[in-house]
Parts: sequence; structure tokens; C-alpha cells
Amino acid sequence: MASHPGKRSSEALALRGGEVRACSESLVVEEPLEIRLDGEPLAVTMRTPGNDVELAAGFLVSEGVARDFGAVSSIAHCDDAGNVVLVRTEPGAPGIVRPAPRAFAASSACGLCGKATLESLRAFAAPLHGDPARVDARVLRALPDTLRAAQPLFRDTGALHAAGLFSLDGALLCAREDVGRHNAVDKVVGWAALERRLPLGGSLLLVSGRIGFEIAQKALVAGIPILAAISGASSLAVELARENGQALVAFLRGEALTIYAGSERIKFP
Amino acid sequence: MASHPGKRSSEALALRGGEVRACSESLVVEEPLEIRLDGEPLAVTMRTPGNDVELAAGFLVSEGVARDFGAVSSIAHCDDAGNVVLVRTEPGAPGIVRPAPRAFAASSACGLCGKATLESLRAFAAPLHGDPARVDARVLRALPDTLRAAQPLFRDTGALHAAGLFSLDGALLCAREDVGRHNAVDKVVGWAALERRLPLGGSLLLVSGRIGFEIAQKALVAGIPILAAISGASSLAVELARENGQALVAFLRGEALTIYAGSERIKFP
Repeated sequence: MASHPGKRSSEALALRGGEVRACSESLVVEEPLEIRLDGEPLAVTMRTPGNDVELAAGFLVSEGVARDFGAVSSIAHCDDAGNVVLVRTEPGAPGIVRPAPRAFAASSACGLCGKATLESLRAFAAPLHGDPARVDARVLRALPDTLRAAQPLFRDTGALHAAGLFSLDGALLCAREDVGRHNAVDKVVGWAALERRLPLGGSLLLVSGRIGFEIAQKALVAGIPILAAISGASSLAVELARENGQALVAFLRGEALTIYAGSERIKFP
Repeated sequence: MASHPGKRSSEALALRGGEVRACSESLVVEEPLEIRLDGEPLAVTMRTPGNDVELAAGFLVSEGVARDFGAVSSIAHCDDAGNVVLVRTEPGAPGIVRPAPRAFAASSACGLCGKATLESLRAFAAPLHGDPARVDARVLRALPDTLRAAQPLFRDTGALHAAGLFSLDGALLCAREDVGRHNAVDKVVGWAALERRLPLGGSLLLVSGRIGFEIAQKALVAGIPILAAISGASSLAVELARENGQALVAFLRGEALTIYAGSERIKFP
């Protein structure tokens, strides 16, 4: 078994039917990663080691910090610590928006609501109505098997999420795994940022789990017009997709799928 | 279908084999909830409406804010807004620890690591070695079916996580659902806090998904000695459990289960 920083073997007891035996099991590794922006701590996320620079790059993009990724001048592991990624930006670059120390300090007297949450995104996420992307339903149905084949850590540990970016004809462009659902998407978006492929028009994102608001937000900010999930979707994710011209397809299982938004982007057999 | 604030019907297109039809599907609702502590914003979490006061109470306990829940004098929805819970505490109560504006500002020069993360918990989470709780493996095997039967929203929407608190003989004490895994656990812990049942010695928590560090942390802070999951566990969750005398059982599926920590708490057939 090849060594990978994302897995670690652990002693365990396995009970199968009436039989107990000691065994060695692969566990998915979870460790904190700190992202520092120009010397200041920006965020700590619990993640699976591997593709850390992509994770940091994707976080910067999808959380609206690096609105112009070209303003990021360097992004690399701290030499002294494996769990720190240092980001440097062009001094005074307008494309970098440092978050306020407390993101929720500015909430209105009536509290946040779904509508206010959707509106707060408008500052940095452009709607995708202009992207002509369409995909054949038969292509969608084949994606889960393709993604699963690109999940080596899941195969060994059984406890990771995955995100896969595909072209509209179903070719896998990038697949990433992580103990955190959001991190898997950030790693994919970060890969695209580092490859200078943003925005990701004419592409499709499949996630192994559910699509909640934050996953839909990250896809929108990256410019991905078609979003698919093996599990279900939340009300706010569906509202976000409808409002911004994204297709949202969920419960992609075998021959079945359910389209909650943007059905004009799906070609039926 | 009874109306529940946690679900909403949505128009969708269902593709089953070669047939497409318009239908109405239940979506799990996701909306932000703001928790205010003595008038100051404390946190915003994306959650499924329902049991909001429990969610806020559990968040206060499991994040180490209300180290003595008796110091919370009131906790209730804001009259003017459905998505705000107001928490009032006894002035100057030592059991309330307000988080620093930026939780990660104090990280050490070498960055965070798993060890530092475990150590930072010691301030408010007591080890559970002294709790004599043990459970029969046959009881563990029956829990997933019991929890599933207590997940009405999952039945309708297929897209929620659940957490269930059980006695050691397998009786369900409290089950809660949420679009967020952490929220489901916080709702259960909050139920216990409001019922003045903390710490939860001699009990068992089952989660429908995976056990990552944060889930294990919340269970430890609540004093739960046995932790079980239908899916897998992460390395840091296992380390946390081992260090603090918790049992951690994962992949609870049919007749099989895997014990990663605290096997002395499991009675075999």
C-alpha cells in the first residue's frame, strides 16, 4: 500500500458476525491547516493533508478574498511547518478583499435570512445565464462511476468526500478528496486557479455528498454552470442555482436523477 | 404531508430510466441562524429550522462558551426574527467564556497541528476514563434502525444528517436532524443542556455520517463516553477518543462494526 499523507494505519477491532479480530485499518488523516495572508492568519480549516496549496488557493477564490487571482504573487507551504500555507499578494492590489475580523458583525437588526445571504454573494459572484453549457443526461449518469474510480483514499478508508470537475462530454479534468466536503471543492477550484483556468465556464462539478448552500456558492464563484450530486440538495442551494442560471441535478443514482434548477441545460435521451 | 419548517416542496424534473416527468419534491430547508450572546453576535450557522433554541444551547456548550450552563439565564427566539436566538447570561458569571474575535489569532509560530488542537481542548473538556459505561455489541448493531425510524425529514428529503442519544441498553433518548452534521449533534447536546442532564455520563451518541474531530469534540465536551457512526472516522477523532477514554465505533452496518478506541467499553457476544 503506497504511503499517502492523507491516510494512516490504525489498530482496530473488527466484529464481523460473531467473530472479533484485531486488525489494521486505514484511517483518513484529519489535521488543521492554517492559511496566512501577507503574514496575518486568515483561516484554519480541518482538512486531509495533500494538495494543500490548491486548498488554500481555492479557499481564497471561493470565499471572495482573491477576487482577482492574478493579484496573488506567491502561495506555498511554510518551510517550517507542514500545516501552514503562506499567501503573498501584490501590495495594494484591488483584487484582494480582506475579510472583516468578524464576518457577522454587520448583520442587520432583523437577523440574517436566506434572501440576505443570497444578496451578500452578489458582490463577487456573477450570474451564469450567459454560459450556453448543456450536458446530455447520459453523460451525467456515467459521472459517479468515473469519480469513484478517482477516489483512491476513499477506497482505502471509506470516509472521505470527493469533488470532480468534468468537461461537458464527461471527461474528468480534476478530482480531489478530503475529509471535509467544502475542502474537496476548494481543492478543485484551487487547481483551476493555479492552472489559470478560472472562470470555469462550460464545465460541470460533481460532488459525492450533498449540495448545501456553501457548495453551490463555491461553484458559482468559480463560474461552474452545472452542479451535480450523488445525494440531495438544500432549499438555499436550489434558490441560489435558480437565481444565477446554474443547473442543479441531485440524487444521481443508476438510471435516475432529479433536476431542481436549470433543466434547459440538460439534454434528454 | 404535515408541514414542518425543515422541509419545503419544490418543483423538479425526475428522470427515471428513459422517462422524464415534472414532479414536486420535498427539499430540506437550509437557512442561516444567528446566535447573539448578551446582545453581541456570537455565530452564524447554516441550519435546518426547528429546535433552534436547542441548537443554540448545544453550540454554547460544545464550543466551550457556556462552561457552566447554569450561568445562561435565558435563551429564546428573537420576537422580531425567526432566524435569531438571543442568549442572556448572569452578569460576570465565570462559567461563560466569550471567544476572542479571531479564534486563530493566537496560533503558535509553527502553526497548528493535531497535537496542539487536542491540547487546546483540555481547558474545558474533562477526560472520561472514570465513566464505567459499557455497551453490548448487539445493542450497537440495533441502533442504526432505531435512529432511521426517528428521521422523518430524511425520509421525505433524503438529504439530512441525524444524531441520536441513547441509553446503554439502546433506548433512544433524543434524535435530531439537520442539514449540517455538527448542528444535529449540537441540537442533541442542547436538548440535554436545557433538560439539565449534562454531563451525559452513561450514554451513547450515534451519528448518521462520519465522525470527524469536531463531532468527537462535541461529544467529549458533553461527557458522552461512547461514540458510534454509520460511516467512518478520522485520525484526529480517533486520537481524541483514545486520549480521553471514549469508545469510538465506526462502520456500523448490519452485523459488522469496527472499534477504533475504547474496546474495553464493548461487550462481545
